[in-house]
Amino acid sequence: MVTARDFLGRDVLTVGEFRRDELLFLLDAADKFERVTGTLLAGRVVATLFFEPSTRTRLSFESAVGRLGGSCIGFAEAGISSMAKGETVADTVRVVQGYCDLLLLRHPKEGTARLAAEFADIPVVNCGDGAHQHPTQTFVDLYTIRRECGRIDGLKIVFAGDLRYGRAVHSLVHVLTQFKAHVTLVAPDFLRLPQEQLRALDEMGVEYREMEDLEAAVPEADVLYMTRVQQERFTDPHEYLKFRDAYTLDLKILRRAKPEIVILHPLPRVTEIATEVDNHPHAAYFRQAHYGVAVRKALIALLLGHAEKVL
Amino acid sequence: MVTARDFLGRDVLTVGEFRRDELLFLLDAADKFERVTGTLLAGRVVATLFFEPSTRTRLSFESAVGRLGGSCIGFAEAGISSMAKGETVADTVRVVQGYCDLLLLRHPKEGTARLAAEFADIPVVNCGDGAHQHPTQTFVDLYTIRRECGRIDGLKIVFAGDLRYGRAVHSLVHVLTQFKAHVTLVAPDFLRLPQEQLRALDEMGVEYREMEDLEAAVPEADVLYMTRVQQERFTDPHEYLKFRDAYTLDLKILRRAKPEIVILHPLPRVTEIATEVDNHPHAAYFRQAHYGVAVRKALIALLLGHAEKVL
Amino acid sequence: MVTARDFLGRDVLTVGEFRRDELLFLLDAADKFERVTGTLLAGRVVATLFFEPSTRTRLSFESAVGRLGGSCIGFAEAGISSMAKGETVADTVRVVQGYCDLLLLRHPKEGTARLAAEFADIPVVNCGDGAHQHPTQTFVDLYTIRRECGRIDGLKIVFAGDLRYGRAVHSLVHVLTQFKAHVTLVAPDFLRLPQEQLRALDEMGVEYREMEDLEAAVPEADVLYMTRVQQERFTDPHEYLKFRDAYTLDLKILRRAKPEIVILHPLPRVTEIATEVDNHPHAAYFRQAHYGVAVRKALIALLLGHAEKVL
Repeated sequence: MVTARDFLGRDVLTVGEFRRDELLFLLDAADKFERVTGTLLAGRVVATLFFEPSTRTRLSFESAVGRLGGSCIGFAEAGISSMAKGETVADTVRVVQGYCDLLLLRHPKEGTARLAAEFADIPVVNCGDGAHQHPTQTFVDLYTIRRECGRIDGLKIVFAGDLRYGRAVHSLVHVLTQFKAHVTLVAPDFLRLPQEQLRALDEMGVEYREMEDLEAAVPEADVLYMTRVQQERFTDPHEYLKFRDAYTLDLKILRRAKPEIVILHPLPRVTEIATEVDNHPHAAYFRQAHYGVAVRKALIALLLGHAEKVL
Repeated sequence: MVTARDFLGRDVLTVGEFRRDELLFLLDAADKFERVTGTLLAGRVVATLFFEPSTRTRLSFESAVGRLGGSCIGFAEAGISSMAKGETVADTVRVVQGYCDLLLLRHPKEGTARLAAEFADIPVVNCGDGAHQHPTQTFVDLYTIRRECGRIDGLKIVFAGDLRYGRAVHSLVHVLTQFKAHVTLVAPDFLRLPQEQLRALDEMGVEYREMEDLEAAVPEADVLYMTRVQQERFTDPHEYLKFRDAYTLDLKILRRAKPEIVILHPLPRVTEIATEVDNHPHAAYFRQAHYGVAVRKALIALLLGHAEKVL
Repeated sequence: MVTARDFLGRDVLTVGEFRRDELLFLLDAADKFERVTGTLLAGRVVATLFFEPSTRTRLSFESAVGRLGGSCIGFAEAGISSMAKGETVADTVRVVQGYCDLLLLRHPKEGTARLAAEFADIPVVNCGDGAHQHPTQTFVDLYTIRRECGRIDGLKIVFAGDLRYGRAVHSLVHVLTQFKAHVTLVAPDFLRLPQEQLRALDEMGVEYREMEDLEAAVPEADVLYMTRVQQERFTDPHEYLKFRDAYTLDLKILRRAKPEIVILHPLPRVTEIATEVDNHPHAAYFRQAHYGVAVRKALIALLLGHAEKVL
């Protein structure tokens, strides 16, 4: 049986490290933490080392810490850090871990969070390492699906957009294999899910479908997970422009969908969801962002050993 | 009669939304909050979305939150935000409002705060939207005038400098109409108060004078409100250079003033007040900045429903 | 006898202002504060005015404040401040001191901290003013030496690298004169300790040796204090490249050292200590960074009059 102890002092680097029962434990904890505020984390310090800007992830983590009465230190972009003086990430991590109880790290380069975890004696949470992983986004996505749909198991989930560079998709697709979800992958050929990930799905015996046509995929979806084509991942701006508007979800397309379809997006969105969709009763992407605070409150409290008073 | 309840959950977008008795209630509350520190706001989170840099406003708000034991999240310039990824302000607001209890917004574009308020379910405080409005600056100015002069009603108040782009002036002139103050507007022709604002004064039957000569305006002033010619509002640097040094208040000019004249400035100042003036007993511009913390403590506590314990 | 009162409200501008017994009092206080966390500083606000980026100093101060339950406000680089609008440092200081209880200031220009202290009614801590002084770094260095070696008096301390621009070295060499330490200065001719500092050592009757060869200096060292050649202090990039790799401490060189040699570095390091040295049992430079939190907790609490509960 999973207990709060299983999270104490743990690194959070990839979703693959978390078993189904651990994920469900975390989602249950998030439910309980949603309304908790106060001084649970008084005197505890969390460092946000963001070598790449982020509004959502950084602010929702900082909100989680603030709601529980802890403090944040850190930087929001590489320019302010000692990197400018030639310091390696490993050294920055070794220094900053001595200032705090928990390291939250975002870095453009894949594998940086794991490197950090090797050098840190305190827990490290990967808040995005390039196109690789962003596990707490996946926890939030799972929480949102369960909360909006009432369950995760057996749902039909359609992913659309940039499945090549979108780490939110990579992680969520991976973890959904633990929930017997039916996955449909909608992307132009250039932006398909990477071969190694498709192979991994095959090896796990997971059934999935690949399509190019969003309209054809929508009718059977319980959940539609839209993603932004991320300009910052393209080296060639022409490639970016070619694919930027590959899909735009609007009310016309949604007329073909089940009435209870739940629409998610890791945000920020640009053109891939028309603003007219925002008032759809199951347009859940802003709620999805908000749930992030509850999930991160629970996660931080668990990693630091302060959750038991609440659970 | 005004009570704390009248402020609960309210947006603060323009000074025009506040009646005289509400303004006086806020000033009284600021008096009471001046020395309050502690944990009144423990677990409450305030977001500072500053799409344009600001030292004074942002830091005095953050100080107010810190003095009362709350937490701040946010960003201090647009570059760190999701704007760089193409997100609209409306989306940023919809996301961040789920992370906090109060949104403090500064943006170079007029009307952004109102837009934000439409999309947010929590109170929004306009911390400056272009050359338009900056209501808490006005609250601080009013507080300073009352505290330094003992009253506001019937004072002779001279504004000098950039009255065209100076939003602090626009707001304060507007609100002074509720206090029967006598307003003199001193500016070179190019930097006069905008026509629409002059018309508004006319329509309200407010008497005002316009002048170009600071020395001629000083002798009758109870309050002299100097302003900086704001380089960032000019598109043509030559225009800026032409007007930058339009007025410089020095001790020589002040020799013509009443001994009790109170000198204000929203700061930062560049050349428009000579540093020799700083030691004038009624050079109140640094105190004016400091009073901002008390006023903002009171305002935040009122908007969030935590003021009653203090009032 | 030194008491906590001797620190109350005091500026910390240069190490020279602190007597031996005061320094020892501070180090003892740091020992006691190391494990203290909580709400000692609830409602207290500390401003970090960093006109020049810094990871280590800023984050360790912010950690110290957070551990004790206070709040930080401020900026991490000049671009976000009102300097961009033409405000002088003096004005920024006069404004911000009204928002907080303590000013932490870093500025590229020598003497800025003293200037700030003249304009502030609250304590100012110099967190580095150009190549001049960085007294809290020196407190941390002293604390580290005492903790790692058990004492300071009479130790043989070798400084190597950029002794010309390295303010950490300047300050520490100065203060070691109070502890009868034996100082060896290892630098290429261009990066020697400045003449005025050498003269000061002469005038105080302090014995020191100057050398160019690191290997020759190592065998007798109890403490080896390595420094980075700071690119940001050079105006000519060719000069920088010439000296960047002047010394690289590696295990081969350390084979000539006493087994108990303690290796320090103010960090960040670039190439001057090979990473293979990191696992040396007395490679203390990361611990040195971590001790900074304890020392700064003690210092802040002392300056603000909150230390007596702990001491």
